[in-house]
Amino acid sequence: MSAYPSQPFQRRARTIQRTVTKAGSRKKIVSVPTAMISGSVQRHKLKVMIVGGAEEVGRNMTLIEYGNDVILIDCGLQFPEEDQPGVDYIIPNVSYLKGREADVKGIIITHGHYDHIGGIPHVSPMLHHPPIYGTKLTNGIIAKRQDDFRDKGQIDLREIDPNQTLQLGVFNVEFFRVNHNIPDCVGIVVHTPEGTLVHTGDFKFDLTPIMDEVTDFAKIANLGKQGVLALLSDSTNAPAPGHQISESAIGVTLDDIFRKASGRVIVGTFASLLNRLQQVIWVSEKYGRKIVIEGFSMRSNIEIAKELGYLSVHPKTVISPQEALRLPEDKVTIMCTGAQGESNAALMRIATREHRFFRVQKGDTVIFSSSVIPGNERTVQRLKDTLLKEGARVIHYEMMDVHAGGHAKAEDLKLLFRLLNPKYIVPVEGNRFLLEASKDIALQLGWSEDTVYVTTNGQVIEFSGGEGRLTKDKIPSDYVMVDGLGVGDVQEVVLRDRQLMSEDGMFVIIVTLRAQTGELVGNPDIISRGFVYMKDAKHLIEEARSKVRKICEHAGGNGARNAMYVKNKLRDDIGQFLFQRTQRRPMILPVVIEV
Amino acid sequence: MSAYPSQPFQRRARTIQRTVTKAGSRKKIVSVPTAMISGSVQRHKLKVMIVGGAEEVGRNMTLIEYGNDVILIDCGLQFPEEDQPGVDYIIPNVSYLKGREADVKGIIITHGHYDHIGGIPHVSPMLHHPPIYGTKLTNGIIAKRQDDFRDKGQIDLREIDPNQTLQLGVFNVEFFRVNHNIPDCVGIVVHTPEGTLVHTGDFKFDLTPIMDEVTDFAKIANLGKQGVLALLSDSTNAPAPGHQISESAIGVTLDDIFRKASGRVIVGTFASLLNRLQQVIWVSEKYGRKIVIEGFSMRSNIEIAKELGYLSVHPKTVISPQEALRLPEDKVTIMCTGAQGESNAALMRIATREHRFFRVQKGDTVIFSSSVIPGNERTVQRLKDTLLKEGARVIHYEMMDVHAGGHAKAEDLKLLFRLLNPKYIVPVEGNRFLLEASKDIALQLGWSEDTVYVTTNGQVIEFSGGEGRLTKDKIPSDYVMVDGLGVGDVQEVVLRDRQLMSEDGMFVIIVTLRAQTGELVGNPDIISRGFVYMKDAKHLIEEARSKVRKICEHAGGNGARNAMYVKNKLRDDIGQFLFQRTQRRPMILPVVIEV
Repeated sequence: MSAYPSQPFQRRARTIQRTVTKAGSRKKIVSVPTAMISGSVQRHKLKVMIVGGAEEVGRNMTLIEYGNDVILIDCGLQFPEEDQPGVDYIIPNVSYLKGREADVKGIIITHGHYDHIGGIPHVSPMLHHPPIYGTKLTNGIIAKRQDDFRDKGQIDLREIDPNQTLQLGVFNVEFFRVNHNIPDCVGIVVHTPEGTLVHTGDFKFDLTPIMDEVTDFAKIANLGKQGVLALLSDSTNAPAPGHQISESAIGVTLDDIFRKASGRVIVGTFASLLNRLQQVIWVSEKYGRKIVIEGFSMRSNIEIAKELGYLSVHPKTVISPQEALRLPEDKVTIMCTGAQGESNAALMRIATREHRFFRVQKGDTVIFSSSVIPGNERTVQRLKDTLLKEGARVIHYEMMDVHAGGHAKAEDLKLLFRLLNPKYIVPVEGNRFLLEASKDIALQLGWSEDTVYVTTNGQVIEFSGGEGRLTKDKIPSDYVMVDGLGVGDVQEVVLRDRQLMSEDGMFVIIVTLRAQTGELVGNPDIISRGFVYMKDAKHLIEEARSKVRKICEHAGGNGARNAMYVKNKLRDDIGQFLFQRTQRRPMILPVVIEV
Repeated sequence: MSAYPSQPFQRRARTIQRTVTKAGSRKKIVSVPTAMISGSVQRHKLKVMIVGGAEEVGRNMTLIEYGNDVILIDCGLQFPEEDQPGVDYIIPNVSYLKGREADVKGIIITHGHYDHIGGIPHVSPMLHHPPIYGTKLTNGIIAKRQDDFRDKGQIDLREIDPNQTLQLGVFNVEFFRVNHNIPDCVGIVVHTPEGTLVHTGDFKFDLTPIMDEVTDFAKIANLGKQGVLALLSDSTNAPAPGHQISESAIGVTLDDIFRKASGRVIVGTFASLLNRLQQVIWVSEKYGRKIVIEGFSMRSNIEIAKELGYLSVHPKTVISPQEALRLPEDKVTIMCTGAQGESNAALMRIATREHRFFRVQKGDTVIFSSSVIPGNERTVQRLKDTLLKEGARVIHYEMMDVHAGGHAKAEDLKLLFRLLNPKYIVPVEGNRFLLEASKDIALQLGWSEDTVYVTTNGQVIEFSGGEGRLTKDKIPSDYVMVDGLGVGDVQEVVLRDRQLMSEDGMFVIIVTLRAQTGELVGNPDIISRGFVYMKDAKHLIEEARSKVRKICEHAGGNGARNAMYVKNKLRDDIGQFLFQRTQRRPMILPVVIEV
């Protein structure tokens, strides 16, 4: 270990003074930590763990630890995979912090998207409600969502200004504005005794953003000058060459579509893509269209953003569905959720004629203004097909560049890496493939293999004396699944059962035996679901029933041992019989009742 | 109706004579149908129905009918969607032909891919085994697959040469060579009393194909000159601009990868992508690599193609896994199935260390040489991530143009439309979106709205007096699902049950009542799977059990009416109780046993 205080720490100390001077008037500023400046603190290793988001997309969380001080960056949710049927979503695993809740000095949130805030209602109580820091709009969205989780206790939500600094235990935290596709996003700078860490959150560079300030390039460049120990950067779009398109470029395309549209324009997008919604509002207003907003989450996000000044909309622009039905078609825009083909969302209900007010008609133009989340391709395709069949014109982002992504592409990452010039780079927010793509970019720019860390979830990165090390240690990072009211109670075995039953259904056999003699009472009951259509399979069921009878009759004996024998025999023999006859393997559930 | 014989018919008659003269020496030539030439046949409408493949990708089948004569083109299978859990695949619905099996003069197969041949084992016996016509390689693959369906009876497989003609009832059938990504593909020309129909099958134009003859442009152009009533053309790649890449172009990329690879090269692709396999064989031989083939279907396809002369491979190139393990890494290529992330295929087993002989090691280059089928994106991504984690270099078609598609792109379709210049265009083989993209291309070239038919499955197109009409009539086209040994026995209700159980599991309640008194005997039994983890939910189960007791005790009465009342009450009340406590809705199955 190098002599203390190390060089990175020296740089950090200077930074603190600068930012304190600059933002001294703000109320949340904490005084400079004298203990640290004086060099009297005990030395620890700085540990950084990607708790979630290093092998997947979603449930983003980064844990930074120094001695007894822990801070977390983001607390997202992830949507389940195909082999997790029935699960609502997955949240970060914070069991590493069990018993150390008081060490958590804060959760810092980069922006208000669910893959960065969605775990809060569940994780905050687990950690005994540490302070949660976010910008105004981010906090507005967090607070709104919390309405659905009143029973989980009061979260401690604190607003930050991107220009202020925070002292959280040993960590001094700064922010810098970045752009994405929702306003008020920040990157996070954590000055630690080992040097400065920078976490970008989700970001893109956008020189002409919509209803948002431009990325704070000056601050980023300045950080680079002062020296950055490690950069944790967004990898979502790393495999894409070139620069990300500005959100403003979308305006030109939208304008063109709206100008030519002779009927209604229906725009399907994410409820959280606020900058896109802003543009649709502007272009609708330009062409004299009123707007109906369909979808609870979209209405609520627009409400929050409008209230907090992040969305500009004329008071007369938004109208009710009833009012829209009285207007000529070319005066109406419908903004709705469901562009991912979600079965209950507004766009799907409109397409399938199940919507209360609207259905698609010839002359309608439907714009899919969001990229398709991997896994949703077929569903989205089916939705488009349905809309086309109903007579709509369908425009999707691949056809007309209607979608500008929210994430840095390869050239943007190069610019970031050059500006910050960190000693170490840790790609975050993406599965292995995306992380490796980020790494390739860093290697191209001259970073060496041993200064770019592609980690797995929970893997511990240590920094000590200005040197980093990707250890083989791991903190828990298993899935914590939320299903209804249960958090973490859906285990592998439950999922396996769900999958089994979804393949070939189940087959319950109920036999009643006389306790004294083991003799069969009455007729065995058979219930089956998801296996064969019972009405058409009477013959098969009767054959199975007669096999069940035979098994019971040949079993003989009585008591618990006999019941167990009968159960096992039923499971094996009837399972085999059904497979032979159908080549299907329903889950066999034998029940022996003794009377 | 125009005067008989109509102009298209005139043209057809000439065509027959020409082809008969040209291919007169071939044994399968049928004599010119004098009844038709003489004009003495009874006039009917010509009907064309896309039985499968008009609203989906897969289970391709086109039905052509004139009076009592029916021919079918292709008989494919389709893989199930997410809402069809447990289903093996879906085949075309031929219930329209029930009782009219003798009318079916033949099934003509365009090429040997499963979305064109996969329905044969099931459909052939339903139609009392009509003759099935295919080229040499196509028939080789059909025959091989038939080995798995010996109990379904003998199919009547007949080999055609692309230069011959067939007389099938009133229809005179010709062929023209096209290219795809398997050799020996044909487009089909059906001369009918109403004019000439052309069906492309799956096709691309490839001026430098691999182990295959070039598309027969001369024949296509000639058909155009003679006049084509309607063209049914492949829409799979219609939305893509430009021309499809030649299969040979892949060779250049493969060569580059192989030249640079210092370890093993593992190529994952479809077992049926024979042209690709050929190229991998050639490039391996060039760089002195031996090849291991992993995957049953791939080995079997290579065997057939080699035997029939459609694959060139040096006798010493293919080696066993054991031999490969004794060779230096840079002398080994592994060709395997599983590039779609199929859980049991070779590539997945190699990646997850479950393969008998191979596992991925640092230095390996893994090439994904097939495009990802929509719906498989996440699985493929996970497979790539696993391979990367194991240390492999992963190359996929988006990165290095490793995949040339097998289907015509927009410019190819334009060339086809111009060459054939059909009066009507019916896009086939694709969901609505793809069909509409084909239509847009035709409209750009000057076809009018009423000469391009975007149909739904089963919708009847009529031709009469040289004029076409897209009617509103429909023949049955519902899904026929194959699940294990069952064909068509999996109904909507079975699928709905499977889906329900996969969401929240199921909850069986068994109560035994004294028949005379309705009094509860013993303790109610509860079995649940896929709902909660039973060991962790003892309290919930006990509460539910005590509620069950109460319901039974309050029911009073006896007999069947009481049993029904108890059942309904259990279903409703316990369902509600569980939902309140868990926000999950397992399928509740109450069983009342009377003793």
